[in-house]
Amino acid sequence: MITIASDFGTPYPAAMKGVILQRTDTRLVDIAHDFPRQDVRAAAFWLREVLPYYPPATHLVVVDPGVGTDRDAIVLRAGDHALVGPDNGVLRPVARELAGDGPLEAYVIDDTEIGPIEPTTGTPAPSVPSAIGSSSGESDGTGAGEGPASNTFHGRDVFAPAAADVRGTDRENLEALEYLSPTSTEDLVDLELPDATVADDRAEGEVLVVDGFGNVITNVPGEFLEGRDRINANGESIPVGDTFAAVPEGERLATVGSHGYVELDVNRGRGDDAFGLEPGDRVVLEGLE
Amino acid sequence: MITIASDFGTPYPAAMKGVILQRTDTRLVDIAHDFPRQDVRAAAFWLREVLPYYPPATHLVVVDPGVGTDRDAIVLRAGDHALVGPDNGVLRPVARELAGDGPLEAYVIDDTEIGPIEPTTGTPAPSVPSAIGSSSGESDGTGAGEGPASNTFHGRDVFAPAAADVRGTDRENLEALEYLSPTSTEDLVDLELPDATVADDRAEGEVLVVDGFGNVITNVPGEFLEGRDRINANGESIPVGDTFAAVPEGERLATVGSHGYVELDVNRGRGDDAFGLEPGDRVVLEGLE
Amino acid sequence: MITIASDFGTPYPAAMKGVILQRTDTRLVDIAHDFPRQDVRAAAFWLREVLPYYPPATHLVVVDPGVGTDRDAIVLRAGDHALVGPDNGVLRPVARELAGDGPLEAYVIDDTEIGPIEPTTGTPAPSVPSAIGSSSGESDGTGAGEGPASNTFHGRDVFAPAAADVRGTDRENLEALEYLSPTSTEDLVDLELPDATVADDRAEGEVLVVDGFGNVITNVPGEFLEGRDRINANGESIPVGDTFAAVPEGERLATVGSHGYVELDVNRGRGDDAFGLEPGDRVVLEGLE
Repeated sequence: MITIASDFGTPYPAAMKGVILQRTDTRLVDIAHDFPRQDVRAAAFWLREVLPYYPPATHLVVVDPGVGTDRDAIVLRAGDHALVGPDNGVLRPVARELAGDGPLEAYVIDDTEIGPIEPTTGTPAPSVPSAIGSSSGESDGTGAGEGPASNTFHGRDVFAPAAADVRGTDRENLEALEYLSPTSTEDLVDLELPDATVADDRAEGEVLVVDGFGNVITNVPGEFLEGRDRINANGESIPVGDTFAAVPEGERLATVGSHGYVELDVNRGRGDDAFGLEPGDRVVLEGLE
Repeated sequence: MITIASDFGTPYPAAMKGVILQRTDTRLVDIAHDFPRQDVRAAAFWLREVLPYYPPATHLVVVDPGVGTDRDAIVLRAGDHALVGPDNGVLRPVARELAGDGPLEAYVIDDTEIGPIEPTTGTPAPSVPSAIGSSSGESDGTGAGEGPASNTFHGRDVFAPAAADVRGTDRENLEALEYLSPTSTEDLVDLELPDATVADDRAEGEVLVVDGFGNVITNVPGEFLEGRDRINANGESIPVGDTFAAVPEGERLATVGSHGYVELDVNRGRGDDAFGLEPGDRVVLEGLE
Repeated sequence: MITIASDFGTPYPAAMKGVILQRTDTRLVDIAHDFPRQDVRAAAFWLREVLPYYPPATHLVVVDPGVGTDRDAIVLRAGDHALVGPDNGVLRPVARELAGDGPLEAYVIDDTEIGPIEPTTGTPAPSVPSAIGSSSGESDGTGAGEGPASNTFHGRDVFAPAAADVRGTDRENLEALEYLSPTSTEDLVDLELPDATVADDRAEGEVLVVDGFGNVITNVPGEFLEGRDRINANGESIPVGDTFAAVPEGERLATVGSHGYVELDVNRGRGDDAFGLEPGDRVVLEGLE
């Protein structure tokens, strides 16, 4: 099984699926293709919350604002799961979660050795010139472009074929892939979702993400709400409820979301609008007598 | 085969799929995950129009504004199909359609017996406190929260595992599921999509839904247009056409939609904008000489 | 394998899938269902770019502004692939690509012989009156409506069952389908995506499509950028980069996109807004010393 997640919208993921299906007939499952554009942290959060519900699988993740720069393309073995994507931190929180107490191992993909990915029939697509803009002085990302891959769609040209070849976490298979080189997980880009600071009656944290319903998901553990009927959220008193429906329609509440964190919500409305909060904003919760 | 429909957007349905795929390797088919948010009637309409085109299957439906309240979680046997979702009426119109002259039977899910649903690897997700907000006075929905399920995501924690276990309509299998108890369909929440009142030259109905093209789908049976070249729709004279292209681009018409109802449309435009109509609005159609 | 592409949004494609799954248990892959509404040229472009990455398959395409008119419904054999959809040109560019030097053959679907497609259980859907609006004088598209299909949803009633029956490009199977008649590809509606005019230091073309990131995809071959550091795009000097990250965040550049064409982009921003360009707009690129 290969799961696929990206910020591509459509139809780019369909090209990735075609490349995979050229190489394997395994099951494909879409996680989401509408992650906030080029937002590594939001994708890292959602992947950490969703992928652990899957049976052992290969997870292809392409949220890749640095495509075409010298950021690495990597494969991680994390417990019974494999993760394939750019080395920009997006895979790390879920990799730690999937690995648990088990091994977490990393391989770098040599993207000059993986291709070329060609359409299967008809005339080949126009080739990508190999020397354009090579002296572009402003570049803060250089060094790529020698290989056969496009510089803008490694999802199709690098990550999709790698995910198809990886087929899980069998070490012999991974070692047989010539374009993979073992590397130390110490050398990878890290990303840790921030922890809240929680004292008895006060928690300081931030908004991790806002979901499609407008629910404001903070990084304050749900335990903070235990035994409380009301709290102050950024200075305003709101009820604590065990369900959205614990308050009348249109009213605000704090509750424990399905991820185990405190959410600031509105029953049948949008919490982000009502609280004026967006990802990264500071949240201070205080217990009330 | 399990079909999945919700108003969740992404990536919540992907967590549901992971839970299902832990338990079965059956085919999964997405019906839609962008049903109008918490709009039980719209979902009921679309499910009734779409699911009867499927071969026998288990249909998982989560449009659930009352999640976490004491509304029941149910399984319905309807003809050769099984339906799994909240008992809020969303399943009833399609269940009647799928059952036809055959049996329609109901089971209640004991959601305290179905879980817990745990991520498969790594550290467990933060547990949901069991006693938060328990004295929240404004609550009009109480009684849940004793079980292991989250209070806000029964799609993942209750309905997905139930749909995976149900595997169709085999009675022996259903009776072997300890968390299912037979119940009378008389005791379930009902929902009937409203019927139009049709006389010879006049039909009074309402807008059932507006589709993504802006086509205004009414509950007036298409037969009302038979033999007519023009009608009055809410007092304005418009042509009747057998296709969108029966009128010039940008012009309004009445036609018979793919569901067999009268639609108020614009050729290559949006009928809802042109007619100023939205779901629930009253529609009066009058035949012209 | 059947791939499915449309401009339907949801949930209409789910009805098509049900009809297919009544007839075959083959793999279904969604290409996209959010192609620009009724925009045959945009769909033709994307299909030509994406479908060649697939292994041999049947491709069901429904972007069909003329549904219900006398436009034909067709099946194309193109190399190892089959294409099913309306005869409005949308299939031609990808068919040429898939056929390459191999055969390109066409069949017309008799849509009065393919149905009726009935829901499988319960009461039949309200039937579509056969004689509505038949004298509608403004019609520029007539002649359909005699068959059992709805006039507005041939995706469900004609193309989906045809795609399920076609099952690839086996000639014996195709000839056994009584509702298919061979036709000359000369008689089909053609559509060619426009070519740019390229001289040494000047290219005149147009915007083919804008993708979901706002990248402006032109029809100027990427080779035009070879060896250049800057160009004039519609009179404004911009850098040429090999990746989005070749310029600082928020700045404009020209690059070679994953389709091999010149794109006008903004690093982590929207090129369409920054350049004020939309599909069909003229683009003049000039080399600078």
